[in-house]
Amino acid sequence: MNAAIIGASGYSGEELVRLLSRHPDVKLTAVTSRSLAGKLVGDQMPALRHLVGDLSFTASNPAELAASTEIDIFFLALPHGVASEFADPLYQAGKTVIDLSADFRLGSTRVYEDYYGQAHPAPHLLEAAPYVIPELADDKWKSASLIACPGCYPTSIQLPLVPLLKAGLIDPKGIIINSYSGVSGAGRKVAEDFIYCERNESMKGYGMPKHRHLSEIEEQLEKAAFADCIVQFNPHLAPMSRGISTTIVAKAKLKDSLNSVYDTWEKAYGGKPFVSVLPTGTFPDTKHVTGTNRADISAVYDPRTGNFIINSVIDNLIKGASGQAVQLMNLKFGFEETAGLL
Amino acid sequence: MNAAIIGASGYSGEELVRLLSRHPDVKLTAVTSRSLAGKLVGDQMPALRHLVGDLSFTASNPAELAASTEIDIFFLALPHGVASEFADPLYQAGKTVIDLSADFRLGSTRVYEDYYGQAHPAPHLLEAAPYVIPELADDKWKSASLIACPGCYPTSIQLPLVPLLKAGLIDPKGIIINSYSGVSGAGRKVAEDFIYCERNESMKGYGMPKHRHLSEIEEQLEKAAFADCIVQFNPHLAPMSRGISTTIVAKAKLKDSLNSVYDTWEKAYGGKPFVSVLPTGTFPDTKHVTGTNRADISAVYDPRTGNFIINSVIDNLIKGASGQAVQLMNLKFGFEETAGLL
Amino acid sequence: MNAAIIGASGYSGEELVRLLSRHPDVKLTAVTSRSLAGKLVGDQMPALRHLVGDLSFTASNPAELAASTEIDIFFLALPHGVASEFADPLYQAGKTVIDLSADFRLGSTRVYEDYYGQAHPAPHLLEAAPYVIPELADDKWKSASLIACPGCYPTSIQLPLVPLLKAGLIDPKGIIINSYSGVSGAGRKVAEDFIYCERNESMKGYGMPKHRHLSEIEEQLEKAAFADCIVQFNPHLAPMSRGISTTIVAKAKLKDSLNSVYDTWEKAYGGKPFVSVLPTGTFPDTKHVTGTNRADISAVYDPRTGNFIINSVIDNLIKGASGQAVQLMNLKFGFEETAGLL
Amino acid sequence: MNAAIIGASGYSGEELVRLLSRHPDVKLTAVTSRSLAGKLVGDQMPALRHLVGDLSFTASNPAELAASTEIDIFFLALPHGVASEFADPLYQAGKTVIDLSADFRLGSTRVYEDYYGQAHPAPHLLEAAPYVIPELADDKWKSASLIACPGCYPTSIQLPLVPLLKAGLIDPKGIIINSYSGVSGAGRKVAEDFIYCERNESMKGYGMPKHRHLSEIEEQLEKAAFADCIVQFNPHLAPMSRGISTTIVAKAKLKDSLNSVYDTWEKAYGGKPFVSVLPTGTFPDTKHVTGTNRADISAVYDPRTGNFIINSVIDNLIKGASGQAVQLMNLKFGFEETAGLL
Repeated sequence: MNAAIIGASGYSGEELVRLLSRHPDVKLTAVTSRSLAGKLVGDQMPALRHLVGDLSFTASNPAELAASTEIDIFFLALPHGVASEFADPLYQAGKTVIDLSADFRLGSTRVYEDYYGQAHPAPHLLEAAPYVIPELADDKWKSASLIACPGCYPTSIQLPLVPLLKAGLIDPKGIIINSYSGVSGAGRKVAEDFIYCERNESMKGYGMPKHRHLSEIEEQLEKAAFADCIVQFNPHLAPMSRGISTTIVAKAKLKDSLNSVYDTWEKAYGGKPFVSVLPTGTFPDTKHVTGTNRADISAVYDPRTGNFIINSVIDNLIKGASGQAVQLMNLKFGFEETAGLL
Repeated sequence: MNAAIIGASGYSGEELVRLLSRHPDVKLTAVTSRSLAGKLVGDQMPALRHLVGDLSFTASNPAELAASTEIDIFFLALPHGVASEFADPLYQAGKTVIDLSADFRLGSTRVYEDYYGQAHPAPHLLEAAPYVIPELADDKWKSASLIACPGCYPTSIQLPLVPLLKAGLIDPKGIIINSYSGVSGAGRKVAEDFIYCERNESMKGYGMPKHRHLSEIEEQLEKAAFADCIVQFNPHLAPMSRGISTTIVAKAKLKDSLNSVYDTWEKAYGGKPFVSVLPTGTFPDTKHVTGTNRADISAVYDPRTGNFIINSVIDNLIKGASGQAVQLMNLKFGFEETAGLL
Repeated sequence: MNAAIIGASGYSGEELVRLLSRHPDVKLTAVTSRSLAGKLVGDQMPALRHLVGDLSFTASNPAELAASTEIDIFFLALPHGVASEFADPLYQAGKTVIDLSADFRLGSTRVYEDYYGQAHPAPHLLEAAPYVIPELADDKWKSASLIACPGCYPTSIQLPLVPLLKAGLIDPKGIIINSYSGVSGAGRKVAEDFIYCERNESMKGYGMPKHRHLSEIEEQLEKAAFADCIVQFNPHLAPMSRGISTTIVAKAKLKDSLNSVYDTWEKAYGGKPFVSVLPTGTFPDTKHVTGTNRADISAVYDPRTGNFIINSVIDNLIKGASGQAVQLMNLKFGFEETAGLL
Repeated sequence: MNAAIIGASGYSGEELVRLLSRHPDVKLTAVTSRSLAGKLVGDQMPALRHLVGDLSFTASNPAELAASTEIDIFFLALPHGVASEFADPLYQAGKTVIDLSADFRLGSTRVYEDYYGQAHPAPHLLEAAPYVIPELADDKWKSASLIACPGCYPTSIQLPLVPLLKAGLIDPKGIIINSYSGVSGAGRKVAEDFIYCERNESMKGYGMPKHRHLSEIEEQLEKAAFADCIVQFNPHLAPMSRGISTTIVAKAKLKDSLNSVYDTWEKAYGGKPFVSVLPTGTFPDTKHVTGTNRADISAVYDPRTGNFIINSVIDNLIKGASGQAVQLMNLKFGFEETAGLL
């Protein structure tokens, strides 16, 4: 099977190149980038020199790609808005597309416009494009050919919360989420705020109270809870390259129900290769999931407040983007779920 | 005026040595440490070589210190429990003592026992020892000779919250606090969990849901609010040497009262040298306060939830410990508030 | 094929567990550690949770291991001296042993005693144990059953230098080497000098002028040069977890012979998967090899001094230890050289 | 006395603002920057908020500044070439100017042109402008009104070497210097190579074999040695914000003369507040000088090679730039040498 990455110049794109180059079941045959077309991938991503041989970036034209017969699966690592320019013709041509942008993450075009500041570029595709965290979805999405890969923060939040909301163990109202992301979360952005001396030894919030991912978080939590779910989401930047650490405070519906939380997680994630449920009192550490497709989660209960405090960690570029995209491909095409991801 | 630091081997002790060595109005004449007695301060704290000359650590005996006539002010940088062994005789001998431990931070011996796992070592002194964040206290404490210097997390929390609770702008119930500390917050602790390769590129929670500082936070917030105040406090370790970043979610009592928050802060901190109130939407950054005695605070309001999100940053070793202690000395003895702290 | 790691509690041991757990051709069946016996590997090395299943550390007894018929290859990740206690009986029992310690790296027992401060523990095995950097050795070593895996600094030094010395392009006299290692080079050592706040934002030399690896470096360079080779080796610690950056100054034997350097490297490393020769003027970056088994090397010529300045980088735990050990196994047993290493 | 900083938008400029704001004997009355004119210094340099009050950046016009009567001393923190545009009229107008650029560091216009790629912009001033590391100069420079402040790498190199060359203890030929700088050495440069994720956990060389500072290093070492002095200078970037670590290999002229090295240093630096000579075997650590105007130096002797290995560390922004500039001002105007620098 042949794969292409469209728009591979960023950090998620680079991680996709790494994962697909090592994948036993697919061949990475095309890597596109408008700005890098003609250049060797190994020169632009020197960390991957031993993996990419003489592969070069190519320019990309949606219509040509749609007409090509060589490529079986397309990963879109493009900005929102731009992704649709590719997704639409590729979808119409019957290709399989896994989109890492925000374009197909939201069900509501109104919310998209509110949060992304522009009209939705391809509303006619929304129904066709399931939003999938593999551990949380049933198998119906596998028949779709356009799949929305969730955002990094939302993945770190939904993995612990969705099963608990579905089981009715926590109050969907009043959830407070604090997330801390490594600097790669900002992408390969060249701006004064992101140079080394500004971010090193620095911790700060940003984008409060209405970060773009909030739209996706609330939409998904509401689906899980069958109820309104207005959350407080506080993103921050932490002085590390990769990793997201999320700490959630949610009201327990029943007293002393920590066991139920763990039972619910056990049922949801027992046997799943990429979610580790840690004992209460063991706090997940971003360092332990960096470079992996794993999420580590745990919870404590505070009898003084009646709250659960839930912690989760992921690698923002892997389980929060490229690794999850590869996991989706694996599952859709019947490969081992862990193929290329260990 | 002559000053002594008792128990100076840790990071707060080192920072006190730095600050007092440069102070225009006092002379640091003694630095004690049981483990380092006899050694040159400059050899143990090479960063201070140019400041400390040939000062050596001495052993310390509470009774002898109490009997000495040379030293005017004692800073106790000792573990809780041990601090009282010095504070008691020094206090009885009429010395001025600024205690950086937890021994005199709590008004309730019951809470002390609950959180620190031992009976309070000097309950008879509690009444005499005011707990003082200088910006939040009236002047009465200045007549005390034993003063409790607040903890690092509590300082980062009280500075933004206390004026708002006093003004009735936020609901004392349901406050959620997430704090992220640089690794020096753990002190100079030699343990596998604190070696470089374990903490570098790592973010994780710890001590939830009942960190020791919670006792101090709640007691002080309740005083400010004249009401019960059960908070959720989530401490974390961040991969940096110094700094605390605190993010607080608190329910606004009135709609659209962000202006009142800023007015209240302006009234509390206008003209204060060590608190900077940043405009809404400007998020404080630990990097900007590292090495200073400053706290930077700001807030945003979320009309969707009715919450304020309040951010604050301090240097945990300075405004969170040694700098605040020096500020207390400055104010008590009528020096410039900023003396030795710029 | 079944593999065992003896003494797996350190960082090199952890990296070996990672690499062997993912290896397509071997099964990691035993992981020993005196201090961790009985504990789950996944609990002690949480970063590997998804790889190790319910594997536990076991205690290890040299005689029992030698008598066992289950295990085909043993990796010794033990301190020098201790390694021989295992290597000897395992070798006598006809097992294949790859030793990551210093015990079989030196040909001379006198030099071993000089640098390691103790008599060589198993001099009778020295002849049987080849010292192998795979890219620099001919195939004879593959018949050996006890193989010495080179040290991290020496690997970063020999890869660029050995072909040049063999080709007579540089003067074996007067070579000056500066190396900078990430803190994991010190192992999982719990000491005040290695806690986060001491090593973060810190750069310093150590162990000059006679670091233990010097013995190994000189012995190997002399073999390559057929001449005496007294080098200056300056090791340092750099504030990062992993990686070695080495900068070598060597006198060119012929003027304007940079092309010959590159030709020689091309001949030595063309087609080798784990050495990348970068163009002159492109300086290798530790970040680009971290997590890989690759060495990146390049050189510039200074006509003012007649010196080559040669730069190389490796991941100290992979090409400098565990990855090289796995590469040795791959080659000895006829697996793909890159198996488990991409 | 009133001071102005011309071109204060970079990191050295920021450090100058910090130092002069706290200086007891001068008042910082003007801070200029073409790009930031009109903006509050405290908004652009939030770390200095508590120091700068409502000082704003102003635009700067060389002629106007030269005509002004308010300012007594000008610090030029400008790029080379641009600095001369200010230095010339200010000098002609009789002002005191301390220039942190390269414009007046070299005695030879030919070498300037060779290394900086342009004709020297003000050759007529070269004779008037002494190049001064205060610890290494006699007092004659104090009568000059235009003073060249040395570069960061050169300061870390000359402090240990110049006394030894003057004393004839080391061979001026064949000196090999490796230096590692924190990322602030590149200034506040906004480029992909300097964003956090590229520099974090990364170590690499650059600018070999002919970094611009080489010209300054050789010119000064030759003056000290009264002999030709062609050195190999290898600069690198290290993953930290500040600090330079320099390791020098130099041939001893006499056997076993380490004592003479220490005697010579003792004579040169005994009683000097900003140079600490550490015992042989104690290696200086950048962390110990960060935030200070201090240089720490030490040396070992290797009897195997007959070389001294000399280590030095400074804070590149302080002793390597702004601190040294303030020290020059202090000495020229008869203030305490350490005023504002402790």
